Amino acid sequence: MIKVSLVGTGAVSTQLLRVFEKTKLIKVVEVLASRGNFNEAIANDKPEIYIIAVSDDAISEVAKKLKDTNKLVVHTSGSVHLDALPHEVRGGVFYPLQTFSKEREVNFEQIPICIEAKQERDEVLLKKLGSLISKQVFEITSEQRKTIHLAAVFVNNFSNHMFQLASEICSENEVSFDLLKPLIEETVAKLQYLSPLNAQTGPAKRNDQQTIERHLNHLDNKTHKMVYEVLTNSIKETYEKKL
Amino acid sequence: MIKVSLVGTGAVSTQLLRVFEKTKLIKVVEVLASRGNFNEAIANDKPEIYIIAVSDDAISEVAKKLKDTNKLVVHTSGSVHLDALPHEVRGGVFYPLQTFSKEREVNFEQIPICIEAKQERDEVLLKKLGSLISKQVFEITSEQRKTIHLAAVFVNNFSNHMFQLASEICSENEVSFDLLKPLIEETVAKLQYLSPLNAQTGPAKRNDQQTIERHLNHLDNKTHKMVYEVLTNSIKETYEKKL
Repeated sequence: MIKVSLVGTGAVSTQLLRVFEKTKLIKVVEVLASRGNFNEAIANDKPEIYIIAVSDDAISEVAKKLKDTNKLVVHTSGSVHLDALPHEVRGGVFYPLQTFSKEREVNFEQIPICIEAKQERDEVLLKKLGSLISKQVFEITSEQRKTIHLAAVFVNNFSNHMFQLASEICSENEVSFDLLKPLIEETVAKLQYLSPLNAQTGPAKRNDQQTIERHLNHLDNKTHKMVYEVLTNSIKETYEKKL
Repeated sequence: MIKVSLVGTGAVSTQLLRVFEKTKLIKVVEVLASRGNFNEAIANDKPEIYIIAVSDDAISEVAKKLKDTNKLVVHTSGSVHLDALPHEVRGGVFYPLQTFSKEREVNFEQIPICIEAKQERDEVLLKKLGSLISKQVFEITSEQRKTIHLAAVFVNNFSNHMFQLASEICSENEVSFDLLKPLIEETVAKLQYLSPLNAQTGPAKRNDQQTIERHLNHLDNKTHKMVYEVLTNSIKETYEKKL
């Protein structure tokens, strides 16, 4: 049985609480609000791990309140270095690589859990915790995590923004965005058997200047035009390099 | 029974042939190579519809060879106007909104089929043909189709390119791109219940300048940097507008 204390009440904390409560060998002994006074709040049933799931900016501040504990203190952020935790604590990282919201329940089994710890025994403990909820647990350094988080911005934030721009283009021209959903699903389904490099299609890849010009003429919005141009050039560059 | 002749041997033609052959009420009487002499090739079993599934540039040329037929002649392109077909023919469009490859079999049932025809009776015929393979058949004008095709470039070509850039960032830093696949899947799964506008997360949406700077510093490649900046600004603009 691993006893954990969750700090924070946001999306990550909510989802971790949900999955931990379903897991026999994990017990959540308390959920602490990040603004609280932890010494008073600490339950009789002592946790082995404090999991700080708060906004990136607040991690250091919150962790300082735990600097006198001899328990493991981890944060859950993709972009914060392990060293952001006070040097006095047994520090670590328990980063589930997924996009979370409070409402939507996610299946943790396939979510990569990226772990890191100052001490080897803590790495073992985090690996054990991770394995209880996911089949995908990886030791990842802070440097690698930084890369993953940056790449995640491209695959999640930026591709979602592509969907947003498409929906703007559709609504400006009175076409339903829903029409595009099967295409979006297939775009992702293709990644199961093709690399993005080999899955690429379209006018930019073909260097079909006529279609590109027609598209640019069809775009009224300045930002839409700029995004189209920059991404078209980036795709062209990708395939020129490979020739 | 609707009898069709397929012109072209690429991905769209291959996939249409596959689904038509599985459909009882459709008969493919011939598959013509676009370079062939159609008069000689025409089978005894006359088609009611010629479906020209060739590259955009070749559509007009190929359709000219059919200008003496009294049958319906349609193309399958998202970006070519109905008027690109010779004015002598009963012209139409039968555009399945999906990304196709020769190898991968797709399920047509959920693929939107966008139809258009010069004559109403032909619209009826195309609607009938479409309904035999898909539950999603829509009458779409050439102008609307232009919009759809442009939006499709954003959701398919451009988001696939985001995956490509992420995979480059991963491999430059010796991290496996596979780690990101569950995140990519969830990004798309979210669209079932959230608009892209509401699904957006990340440093650009939060206007988290510290993380943005850190990401830009971590990117060595000039094009990667430029894409990051342009998309970050476009996301910021989107949410400033909405305030």
